[in-house]
Amino acid sequence: MFETAELGRTVTKEDYAAREPRLRTELLELQTRLKANAKFPLLILINGVDGAGKGETVNLLHEWMDPRFLQAVAFGPPTDEEAARPPFWRYWRALAPRGRTGIYFGNWYTGPIVGRVERHMKKGAFLSSLERIRQFEQALVDDGALVVKLWFHLGKTQQAKVYKRLREDKATRWRVSSDDMRRHGQYDRYRAISEEVVQETSTPAAPWTVIEAADRRYRELAVGETLVAALSARLDSPPPEANRPGRSPPSITGRSILDTVDLATTVSKETYERHLPTLQRSLHSEMVSVAKQGRSVALVFEGWDAAGKGGAIRRVTEALDARDYRVIPIAAPTDEERAQHYLWRFWRHMPARGKLAIYDRSWYGRVLVERVEGFCTDAAWQRAYSEINEFEEELTENGVVVIKFWLHIDAAEQMRRFKEREDTPFKRFKITEEDWRNREKWASYERAVHDMVDRTSTRDAPWHLVGANDKYSARLSVLRHVIERLR
Amino acid sequence: MFETAELGRTVTKEDYAAREPRLRTELLELQTRLKANAKFPLLILINGVDGAGKGETVNLLHEWMDPRFLQAVAFGPPTDEEAARPPFWRYWRALAPRGRTGIYFGNWYTGPIVGRVERHMKKGAFLSSLERIRQFEQALVDDGALVVKLWFHLGKTQQAKVYKRLREDKATRWRVSSDDMRRHGQYDRYRAISEEVVQETSTPAAPWTVIEAADRRYRELAVGETLVAALSARLDSPPPEANRPGRSPPSITGRSILDTVDLATTVSKETYERHLPTLQRSLHSEMVSVAKQGRSVALVFEGWDAAGKGGAIRRVTEALDARDYRVIPIAAPTDEERAQHYLWRFWRHMPARGKLAIYDRSWYGRVLVERVEGFCTDAAWQRAYSEINEFEEELTENGVVVIKFWLHIDAAEQMRRFKEREDTPFKRFKITEEDWRNREKWASYERAVHDMVDRTSTRDAPWHLVGANDKYSARLSVLRHVIERLR
Repeated sequence: MFETAELGRTVTKEDYAAREPRLRTELLELQTRLKANAKFPLLILINGVDGAGKGETVNLLHEWMDPRFLQAVAFGPPTDEEAARPPFWRYWRALAPRGRTGIYFGNWYTGPIVGRVERHMKKGAFLSSLERIRQFEQALVDDGALVVKLWFHLGKTQQAKVYKRLREDKATRWRVSSDDMRRHGQYDRYRAISEEVVQETSTPAAPWTVIEAADRRYRELAVGETLVAALSARLDSPPPEANRPGRSPPSITGRSILDTVDLATTVSKETYERHLPTLQRSLHSEMVSVAKQGRSVALVFEGWDAAGKGGAIRRVTEALDARDYRVIPIAAPTDEERAQHYLWRFWRHMPARGKLAIYDRSWYGRVLVERVEGFCTDAAWQRAYSEINEFEEELTENGVVVIKFWLHIDAAEQMRRFKEREDTPFKRFKITEEDWRNREKWASYERAVHDMVDRTSTRDAPWHLVGANDKYSARLSVLRHVIERLR
Repeated sequence: MFETAELGRTVTKEDYAAREPRLRTELLELQTRLKANAKFPLLILINGVDGAGKGETVNLLHEWMDPRFLQAVAFGPPTDEEAARPPFWRYWRALAPRGRTGIYFGNWYTGPIVGRVERHMKKGAFLSSLERIRQFEQALVDDGALVVKLWFHLGKTQQAKVYKRLREDKATRWRVSSDDMRRHGQYDRYRAISEEVVQETSTPAAPWTVIEAADRRYRELAVGETLVAALSARLDSPPPEANRPGRSPPSITGRSILDTVDLATTVSKETYERHLPTLQRSLHSEMVSVAKQGRSVALVFEGWDAAGKGGAIRRVTEALDARDYRVIPIAAPTDEERAQHYLWRFWRHMPARGKLAIYDRSWYGRVLVERVEGFCTDAAWQRAYSEINEFEEELTENGVVVIKFWLHIDAAEQMRRFKEREDTPFKRFKITEEDWRNREKWASYERAVHDMVDRTSTRDAPWHLVGANDKYSARLSVLRHVIERLR
């Protein structure tokens, strides 16, 4: 597909002068509408051949557009905070919020291309990295993002010419490094692999636009017009609410998975007090060896209100050094979080290697409370099952052990606990109007939990359903399961 | 002062059982009020002797309080992202927002104490690090934060006893490292230096509470009661609006500093076009050498609306590799930013070593727009001059070159530009109702600019006032000044 970008297209000075001002005006107006609408971000990827004017294009966009609503990010080698987390962490944290424009160069495509050209990366890893990229971009687009991917192309002789010109001028000599020259020697291999990448990742959701880059004026107008076309199409005719609706789970005709949870088991206080320290000791030593292996742990606690999440979490944290864990309570998102994909705030708190993160409620809110309360569209929560599976798969692949609990109690036990909370001064804060309202929606939540377990209990990150009518037995069960999974 | 924490105070099991539930209730109620009030954060520092139960206290607070509104942070050796910025960057970014509680251990006191004991840090550096700490805490307290600093003390023989007990039990043996034992051998030196630190940093704004830690029950009640006392005092009688009002600048009787700015100089287009590339080339090479030295640059652009900040900024960025700079446009704060000290959002975007950050408007908003529009109290903006000076001093000390510009135009030139913007389609977005409103307050802003330059033009970070009626001359002047400062 790169031949079509070696046609020698040029734009005359006069033509450029005639078209550029109109283009700027359009681009600015569209950017203003993007900002006012604030429903999606514009994410611009700048990739391509060295010497094709990628850096200049970033500068140009800063000149053409309102720089206050523009953020350009260049990713170098990962910092150690980045290296301590799954590779996409740094891309998630750099995403522009809705209404804004993010420009990414040296982005998620650089690793696979360079890795493959320089032969650090095997074919299998290369292909699965492309699959990960497709999933990532699909998730962003499904959430509304407009992803414009620009590939700047230069033929081999054109690249040589550019380098020659840059090196002859004192002012620009620095732009051509010895590394650039070495890569120029590998031009054909770069081209072949880049072409494969561009083909493999040109999805309907996020297609590539290849830009012939040899003539500066042509290149600039092509960039501007690509952006104007993409942005005006998106603003003038927003996609139907659901880009890629998931299938709705079939309705439950018979029993719910929750009916299978044993609620009868009890453990005496004596037994509990005898086993707790032993289990905590084991947990501690398992965690030490997990940390030594450079892995990390994400514990997810979901469950009915008053099912004892807090108590179970404390029995886990007591076993650990407070330096090594973090409890992340998930409440309503802040406005910075609301302006991003719903998984963004979980990426944000990703544990580093050797650390444990405990999520007191989690990304499963999407298919629980957001589904039941109608906080998101049906398409959004239906799509979420596979998004979440992909997310957890990504974590697992990168050494994060994902352990998920649903603490189950029955409605009668919940009532008893609500009343007890109301009667105990220092527990009263735990019970709110909302808890009573949620209780009225028991059946809807039960349905949602069933579907959640059905759809997201994967081999690497299965759900563990814990009968929690008896607190002691629930806590021991949680500890035992964590220990077992860490082993 | 540590002798008073070696009195052998204990609490009986019965006493503890009687007092603990009431304490929890009070603490929870206060935490709920803190959350509802949401006017200030509670910042708890946990420091003291090893083996005195610091980690256990963090766990205890998680048990006593509502963990959803609590965040514990332990700082280890700096990550490379942290090491690439001034030392306090990581403390700023870990601050709890208003209404929440942050618990910090292994905090800003650890470096100076360990550094001094282990003799990595000279006396002078040690003392100035204590001064920096006092300034940091004072700034937080002035902004409303309640800072509770708990020092856990154990006598030498008590520490030995604790270590012996921990090492005898398999379950707790891991808690005593060989490093702990080595430090135990240096107990006396640790004690002497800690005592100095505690004395030197026990300020009225943020005093230390030394807690006798040998008896677990006594320690726990002491912690709880200290927190209850501090929090209820603060909630029941909030401090007068200004804790530490600065002095109001004297009113200008005669000329403003802005009257001294030369607005007559003009530069022809030809001269401009001849000099621009030369200056950009020099800027580029200066920036390369700054980066090589591991330093970073903060460029601050303030100025009248339409004074040409954007144009000047672009002439700077054109000279640089887009990977090395970031433009940070300062608009209204997000809610996460609003929930923090006003300097927090500038710390957030601190450039790493070798990088350049361009602030399009800056922390000076505090003494300009916030002062003029009454967005903060008089005490707040009056205090801000010294806060800002301390902030910039901290940056300078840590290798950040701070360069500040005020782009000055007169009212007639501004009017001409406003009209031009309204007449040019792609510039129209730049002009808003607010610009016209600000223009009516010209005299108030002029006064605020005068005071700002007067109070914050320091030796290391002087203001550079640029006559900007002529854009060409202004841009060349900005470039020349940046080059000169980098040299």
